[in-house]
Amino acid sequence: MDKAQILVASNRGPVSFSIGDDGTVRSRRGGGGLVSGLSSVAAEIDTLWVCAALSDADRKAAGAAPEGRLDKAGYDVGGASVRMLDIPAETFDNAYNSVANSTLWFVHHMLYDTPNKPAFGARFRSEWADYRAYNSAFAEALLTGADEGAKVAVQDYHLALVPRMLRVRRPDLRITHFSHTPWAPPEYFRMLPAEIGRELLAGMLGADYLGFLSVRWADAFLRCCEVFLRAPVNWSTRAVEYGGRIVRVGVHGLGADAEGLRERAAAEDVAQWRERLRERVGDRKLVVRVDRTELSKNIVRGLEAFGELLREHPEWRGRVTHLAFAYPSRGGVAEYRAYTASVHATAEAINAEFGTDGWTPVVLEVNDDYPRSLASYQIADVLLVNPIRDGMNLVAKEGPVLSLDGVALVLSTEAGAADDLGADALLVNPYDVSETAAALHRALSMGDEERRQRTERLAEAAAALPPHRWFADQLRALD
Amino acid sequence: MDKAQILVASNRGPVSFSIGDDGTVRSRRGGGGLVSGLSSVAAEIDTLWVCAALSDADRKAAGAAPEGRLDKAGYDVGGASVRMLDIPAETFDNAYNSVANSTLWFVHHMLYDTPNKPAFGARFRSEWADYRAYNSAFAEALLTGADEGAKVAVQDYHLALVPRMLRVRRPDLRITHFSHTPWAPPEYFRMLPAEIGRELLAGMLGADYLGFLSVRWADAFLRCCEVFLRAPVNWSTRAVEYGGRIVRVGVHGLGADAEGLRERAAAEDVAQWRERLRERVGDRKLVVRVDRTELSKNIVRGLEAFGELLREHPEWRGRVTHLAFAYPSRGGVAEYRAYTASVHATAEAINAEFGTDGWTPVVLEVNDDYPRSLASYQIADVLLVNPIRDGMNLVAKEGPVLSLDGVALVLSTEAGAADDLGADALLVNPYDVSETAAALHRALSMGDEERRQRTERLAEAAAALPPHRWFADQLRALD
Repeated sequence: MDKAQILVASNRGPVSFSIGDDGTVRSRRGGGGLVSGLSSVAAEIDTLWVCAALSDADRKAAGAAPEGRLDKAGYDVGGASVRMLDIPAETFDNAYNSVANSTLWFVHHMLYDTPNKPAFGARFRSEWADYRAYNSAFAEALLTGADEGAKVAVQDYHLALVPRMLRVRRPDLRITHFSHTPWAPPEYFRMLPAEIGRELLAGMLGADYLGFLSVRWADAFLRCCEVFLRAPVNWSTRAVEYGGRIVRVGVHGLGADAEGLRERAAAEDVAQWRERLRERVGDRKLVVRVDRTELSKNIVRGLEAFGELLREHPEWRGRVTHLAFAYPSRGGVAEYRAYTASVHATAEAINAEFGTDGWTPVVLEVNDDYPRSLASYQIADVLLVNPIRDGMNLVAKEGPVLSLDGVALVLSTEAGAADDLGADALLVNPYDVSETAAALHRALSMGDEERRQRTERLAEAAAALPPHRWFADQLRALD
Repeated sequence: MDKAQILVASNRGPVSFSIGDDGTVRSRRGGGGLVSGLSSVAAEIDTLWVCAALSDADRKAAGAAPEGRLDKAGYDVGGASVRMLDIPAETFDNAYNSVANSTLWFVHHMLYDTPNKPAFGARFRSEWADYRAYNSAFAEALLTGADEGAKVAVQDYHLALVPRMLRVRRPDLRITHFSHTPWAPPEYFRMLPAEIGRELLAGMLGADYLGFLSVRWADAFLRCCEVFLRAPVNWSTRAVEYGGRIVRVGVHGLGADAEGLRERAAAEDVAQWRERLRERVGDRKLVVRVDRTELSKNIVRGLEAFGELLREHPEWRGRVTHLAFAYPSRGGVAEYRAYTASVHATAEAINAEFGTDGWTPVVLEVNDDYPRSLASYQIADVLLVNPIRDGMNLVAKEGPVLSLDGVALVLSTEAGAADDLGADALLVNPYDVSETAAALHRALSMGDEERRQRTERLAEAAAALPPHRWFADQLRALD
């Protein structure tokens, strides 16, 4: 890779802030592929990360830093320069909540209750104007910070318009955009207002290179380019021609950071949780799931499948516990609150139907506890990952990496991770509760040797493209 | 066409029954393309129509007729032989309500609230077994009634398994299947349990010829065959190879029965309704919609678009009335009840926002009145047909045929009718309330001459393939 300056743009930055009881601002470093990717090069290469303030505490910190530069304000941001944008609250709310999370996320994950939603009226047009303004604020910050010939790595559906905004002003920049979500097929994407759908596609096509997590999502994007922009696609090279330029599309199946994970999982707090969970479960088999309570994660059908397992295979009653960790998400959105209620009700119904004095079939925990999750990966007999649609799903990759005695992975065909793990996971149609129940039965019945061998191969496949290499590959694609 | 015997199989037959106050069974002949198509050949050709009893009265009539043969029991069934099957009530309910109308209809129209529905558990498997039994009852009746070399025209998603059931027993039969719905794209179809999706496709591929209402639906079916059966498709001839046979796929865009419609609309009851409606509306412009209150018909967003029209173009306030005829449908299903409530609430909100003492912006009628619908077609200035997904939509075709002074048609891109009427309708994305409002404004503002010219061309296109020819073409495809 050459030594050109590297810029990253993402909604969420490498650090977030909170306001302590004493009124002072405290910073906390985040994790994830970008953080480790960028830190791994920050020592040798000039870097700038542009992100948005996401909370009042973030705004306070960003407002107090010179030009929003958190590194200049003395925060530990991992070696990179970090500029946090203080975007006006209403603009941010419309761009982030209304457009990105309540529209684009729903489109790409095919989550709409179509007879009732979405409805793109006058209000959506003004929200879209704010999405454009939010993208424009990122573009301005990148243009200000970018040296001649710099590489810019734009992240995700929040910032789909940025590549084109950069391209028209600075053709010298080398631009990549990475989509961490699935991509909608044309028959679903077409529900977006026509001119907005085209603006979105054309915005991304301002990049030199577009990355996706799965062949399925990359091909869906290309089909959308064909249908809505009438852009010629070369299917053998995955290249699309638009506005007189060729844009290349590639697949980078982000893997688990095996080394970092194992290091973290070796800590004392994880060991304590492991003991506590083992005590709780006794010598029963353990089915684990760990998700945000997100509409796409399919927790309710997963619980129903566990119920059907107990109904159809009474031999498992009293012999298996399902630990479901479903930490809260987007509680401000009505659909998410209703979904959380439905998760609770389903778990309670199963416990009411099958539970005994000595045995609670489903243990549902709705708070987030990272060391507890890692401990549960270590000791799970079965890991259930059944999203109705998911860009990748790193739980499916992290579980096998951390498993101590082998884990049988029941995995949705609709997760990007199925590309990489399909050979050794038990694949299920996430809408098919009976098939999922049968896969749980097969997973619980799997012999130790088979489970260990599969887990070994799963862990290897899961760690094949660790975050720093995933990030480096995207940048290398710009050379 | 040769003179071979013709059999028709459809869930709903050419006649239905009711029980009068005096306890006697009364018959009523239905309409539609099959009825007129079959009557037009019944004089010269031996015909048999197999259908299901849909109500208790139907069951009573079918049970009393010798071998279920309504013609032999002396009912007026239009010249064909008609056998009405008395399928056990629970089997019928599972096949018709649960599988056909609550699953296959939802899949093909993409109506699911995906985070919550569907969930294919053990119960669905037993409903599917009943769908198979219901299809099998039709197949048995057809096999019993079919002469050597007869032509069998199987209708719609209720009877997708019949073609293969006939084929394996009677390779001499010439079989066609026609889909009156849209067809789901593979990314949506795949939510069906895998083995059931394949059974459905393979069931239909038992036919020699498969008919669809639009190129879009035909191509979606063929893509499903490629993806789920790995069946080779010849895209230039629309033929698919499966099980060592070639199955041809064709598009027959069913049109309006212009002659029959005009004759019916000339009756006195229609004239009376026309006068009543004109009195009610006065010299205001008239926007009309006529639909079943069906989740796919998109009545709520249509009303919202009318509201946005009044908001963005205040010049129309007091000068336009929206007659929305939304007759009841599937009141036994919770989603449909909730949807009907939402239709009411939306109409009331618009009337509360804009209504005056002398003007009610939206007149919503939820009862069915055929002559009133015909009268409204005659005098509408604008006809709004905005389904989120629709096999064809005959309202869009019947409106222009009956219009007396010209009608501007606002039509969803997602209706099959857009294939035939797209050139002269104002096409809208049904999810885009603002675009629909803008189209209503344009439609209301259209000059008389342009409207008349467009209507003339729309009426011609709408009547291009009348029902008897549509039916004859399907049979001819078997020669």
